[in-house]
Amino acid sequence: MSDVYEKLEALLRSLGLKRTELRIYRLLLEKSEPMRITEIQRELGISERSVREHVLSLYRKGILRRRLIEQGWLGYVYTAVTPSEVLEHIKENLVKRINELEKELKSSSGQRN
Amino acid sequence: MSDVYEKLEALLRSLGLKRTELRIYRLLLEKSEPMRITEIQRELGISERSVREHVLSLYRKGILRRRLIEQGWLGYVYTAVTPSEVLEHIKENLVKRINELEKELKSSSGQRN
Repeated sequence: MSDVYEKLEALLRSLGLKRTELRIYRLLLEKSEPMRITEIQRELGISERSVREHVLSLYRKGILRRRLIEQGWLGYVYTAVTPSEVLEHIKENLVKRINELEKELKSSSGQRN
Repeated sequence: MSDVYEKLEALLRSLGLKRTELRIYRLLLEKSEPMRITEIQRELGISERSVREHVLSLYRKGILRRRLIEQGWLGYVYTAVTPSEVLEHIKENLVKRINELEKELKSSSGQRN
């Protein structure tokens, strides 16, 4: 993996992403095609339960996309959001969260005075 | 502690701050006067080594300030940076780091094409 990708991983780690989450994201980035839970599980050799948990967490953080498909079975397939989009997403969310908190801080210190 | 402070703690936790770091920051915010390592240690009942380590980490992250004083002994005293300043600092640093990474991503994908 490239130097830029390592920096991205370091950033995501510092934002609380777990090692397993990063392994899943890296796998999906490398494959660059939709994968099912069981396929991810086979590639990484971790339990289905753990894959499900981490994939859901990544999906909620906007780092993976999912699509419902029917192919004999009905289920989700997952793809990686591009690093650039992930960065934009993080920036927007964090800046928004921080700005809201700053506003609350100002109004609460205003009440005290 | 107020609701706003709890949100600030949640944000700092999600950015990787440890529980002991948050306890030290909270203590210094509440005291709102400079404290020495040994004073922090006594208040929180944790080892000096642990206090030193976490205080240094907080200082490097821009969450504590320190000042060298001589009062019989020569050493640092620490004060908490205000929540608003901490938020500004985090926002600036993260946005800067993300922007740099985005630029690197663009130039590295440009090289590939």
